[in-house]
Amino acid sequence: MLTRTSTQSLTGQLADRLAERIRTRLLPPGARLPSVRECARQQGVSPYTVVAAYDQLLAQGLVEARRQRGFYVRDSAPAQDARSANGADASGAMGMPAAIAVQMMASRVPADASSLIRSMFHRPSDKPQPGMGVFPPDWMASTFMPTAVRRMTNTAALQELSLQYGEPAGDMSLRRSLSQKLVGINVPASPDQIVTTVGATHALDIVSRTLLRPGDPVMVEEPGWALEFARLEALGMRILPVPRRADGPDLEVMAQYCKLHSPKLFVSVSVLHNPTGYSLTPGSAHRVLKLANEHGFHIVEDDTYSHLAPEHATRLSALDGLQRTIYVSGFAKILAPNWRIGFLAAPPELKERLLETKLLATLTSPTLFERALSWCIDQGQLRRHSERVRIRLDGARGRAVKLAMAHGCTFASEPAGLFGWVDTGVDTDALTQRMLDQGYLLAPGSLFHARRPPSTMMRINFATSQDAAFWKVFSKVRSEL
Amino acid sequence: MLTRTSTQSLTGQLADRLAERIRTRLLPPGARLPSVRECARQQGVSPYTVVAAYDQLLAQGLVEARRQRGFYVRDSAPAQDARSANGADASGAMGMPAAIAVQMMASRVPADASSLIRSMFHRPSDKPQPGMGVFPPDWMASTFMPTAVRRMTNTAALQELSLQYGEPAGDMSLRRSLSQKLVGINVPASPDQIVTTVGATHALDIVSRTLLRPGDPVMVEEPGWALEFARLEALGMRILPVPRRADGPDLEVMAQYCKLHSPKLFVSVSVLHNPTGYSLTPGSAHRVLKLANEHGFHIVEDDTYSHLAPEHATRLSALDGLQRTIYVSGFAKILAPNWRIGFLAAPPELKERLLETKLLATLTSPTLFERALSWCIDQGQLRRHSERVRIRLDGARGRAVKLAMAHGCTFASEPAGLFGWVDTGVDTDALTQRMLDQGYLLAPGSLFHARRPPSTMMRINFATSQDAAFWKVFSKVRSEL
Repeated sequence: MLTRTSTQSLTGQLADRLAERIRTRLLPPGARLPSVRECARQQGVSPYTVVAAYDQLLAQGLVEARRQRGFYVRDSAPAQDARSANGADASGAMGMPAAIAVQMMASRVPADASSLIRSMFHRPSDKPQPGMGVFPPDWMASTFMPTAVRRMTNTAALQELSLQYGEPAGDMSLRRSLSQKLVGINVPASPDQIVTTVGATHALDIVSRTLLRPGDPVMVEEPGWALEFARLEALGMRILPVPRRADGPDLEVMAQYCKLHSPKLFVSVSVLHNPTGYSLTPGSAHRVLKLANEHGFHIVEDDTYSHLAPEHATRLSALDGLQRTIYVSGFAKILAPNWRIGFLAAPPELKERLLETKLLATLTSPTLFERALSWCIDQGQLRRHSERVRIRLDGARGRAVKLAMAHGCTFASEPAGLFGWVDTGVDTDALTQRMLDQGYLLAPGSLFHARRPPSTMMRINFATSQDAAFWKVFSKVRSEL
Repeated sequence: MLTRTSTQSLTGQLADRLAERIRTRLLPPGARLPSVRECARQQGVSPYTVVAAYDQLLAQGLVEARRQRGFYVRDSAPAQDARSANGADASGAMGMPAAIAVQMMASRVPADASSLIRSMFHRPSDKPQPGMGVFPPDWMASTFMPTAVRRMTNTAALQELSLQYGEPAGDMSLRRSLSQKLVGINVPASPDQIVTTVGATHALDIVSRTLLRPGDPVMVEEPGWALEFARLEALGMRILPVPRRADGPDLEVMAQYCKLHSPKLFVSVSVLHNPTGYSLTPGSAHRVLKLANEHGFHIVEDDTYSHLAPEHATRLSALDGLQRTIYVSGFAKILAPNWRIGFLAAPPELKERLLETKLLATLTSPTLFERALSWCIDQGQLRRHSERVRIRLDGARGRAVKLAMAHGCTFASEPAGLFGWVDTGVDTDALTQRMLDQGYLLAPGSLFHARRPPSTMMRINFATSQDAAFWKVFSKVRSEL
């Protein structure tokens, strides 16, 4: 995608693109740039162009030349070193020949997951992005959302919703709406048990900070969402990965952890699990709760995908009645990612402590969007909107699954919800690097593991994977690996 | 303020009021309720009414009766126990007779500062509240703010500003506006060095989480803002309080700390310090930075009151050129507390790590208000608005100072900015409890100290302390102590 008609030289374009990847850490500190010949072939330019581009990066201090070994991304932040080293250890531990391990390291996507998450905010092109974690904007567009906001933006409302802090726990009208919504899925939470947050991410952060102390052992499903691993690691927690099966978390592994480590918390996406799409069965839910009661750990149930799930889906919080469970959800996946509205519903005796952490972290949260969201819920607009999105997603899923399978991918789990968990047969870190050159961002399997081992899996977003053009490029690039 | 004309019985009113104070922890766990006779006298009701109200609280499980000792607030959250105990130690350490210590404990305002901060969101009445930390809404009201928001809420803008995540570092137009604004006060920050946050509180939280590990020693000015102490404590940091003088922090104490503890960070409100109103002198700023360079600690400069300060005020970040300093500010004190917009400007090598912490904590922040604020800055509206508010505040300060002095208060520092730091001559924790019964919330001196010792100081908000009625009540209540 370098272009000869651009006002910028090919060398400049190539150098800029690589600099951007280094900056966003898609090329992490310590990664080896491709050899000059390989890069020239990949980009369809002459070796002279590549040498000149590498020279620019050298001059900018972004890479360093190592004698007879090539060009390497320089370490920018010392804090990252330890993690890069871990990455190397993980490759070594796979028992791979050194040459392959080096190759893996060179092409390895970011040393720390939050870098890749960050890079996900930079779309590499205007093409549909199968690696994205949210719906494309046009899927979420609705006529009622602008109406809801405009109701809150007449001058009188704006004064009320701008000039004084909101309720620390969040707007009362929204907490009432959420309470009713939760009753609909059998989670018994009064408005007093609910705290609104800056997105579900913030809710999970608040729970971790309130219930855990650095060094505490915490069980997390694996595969699982990279941000959760990254956050717990940044907070200094000891991560105990629990394999996620079709019916729920691996209970034997959990029981072992309980005996050996006395974990304080279990983090679970029970319904439409990210990335597998699995949903918890009632039997498994019951056994997880039994374990929690026996060993005295709390559970935070991340129900981010609740709007895409059937209403009868099994939630731990419903079975448990919010005794040991804290329920977390948000509206980024269905209504408006940018509003950053999430919430938690907690046992009464934990609620005050959780609220205190919110106060220490952000004081309060903006009321205007909370009030607008409350209106969308109360009017039934959000429910009808969710239904429409679910129906559209069902169609998209059917088409994406067909395309994926026609291009030699297999599904590790029954396709459901927003994401597919796909086996490509090749290392998806390497695949991700190559697909970036074609303007596509993938979500490689390593991203969903605490230790980021090489993986042939990738997560696809069904809403953005219906494009035959993508799959054609995918097949071609994969065959070259 | 119990009323006989209310539809609710006097008993019900009294019980409800006390329950509310227990809930917001203005009456913290372990606090003793006043004796029946004393309460009857304070509230102007019969002892029978008080007994019936205490009985209701007992039935609700909010208080417990201890034989021959009276009624005590029950411990709700075990985590609070340790802090309550510390409070008791602190009283004991003052060398007071046990009876007085018990009395202090009984009347002591919350065991933990964040509880009082939280209670500040519950106005006890519609009267002007001298303990508030912000301007009354009508002081901040402007015609340009609704205009700015409405520019961002036409349907096309709403789609753009709602349906996809914003830039992780914050809206680029706002970061450009902030960069220009900072250049105006000689703080050299490019838009790339700026990260927007959910209020200045969030910025300070991000800095602490990024630069510190639990157990790290951190220097904080004392007196200082309670939330800062509470947050650092919750994060497990070791707080080293640095006495704040008229010209700046006590450098001898800082030098001692550096030798003994090698602190990692110094948290400073250099301009219009809260609660004293002090502003740093250039000489002191120079010496603080010299110390930082010698001992290798970072400084986070909280410039929350920048909009109320003269432009020539000395900032550490300006002298230092953002080498060891991180500049933090926000817009809750001048434009719209509810928008929750703050930001940090950091040395380039720290910026990526700080941004990563933002991602882990809240992913991104809402763009709509950021874009609206950018417009307010670029149009010069915010600057003109700040000037108007400053002039109005100058007038209010003059009147409030006269009233305070006429009622026997003395100022510990030259009155400046939003807050006055006032010596009342009596214990302000006890005073705060009594004034609450009159519908006024004070900000007692103990709130501004890490260990919350009894204090005769209080902070007043000049914008809300011009009411002769308040000072009359204040004098009367004080004389009864």
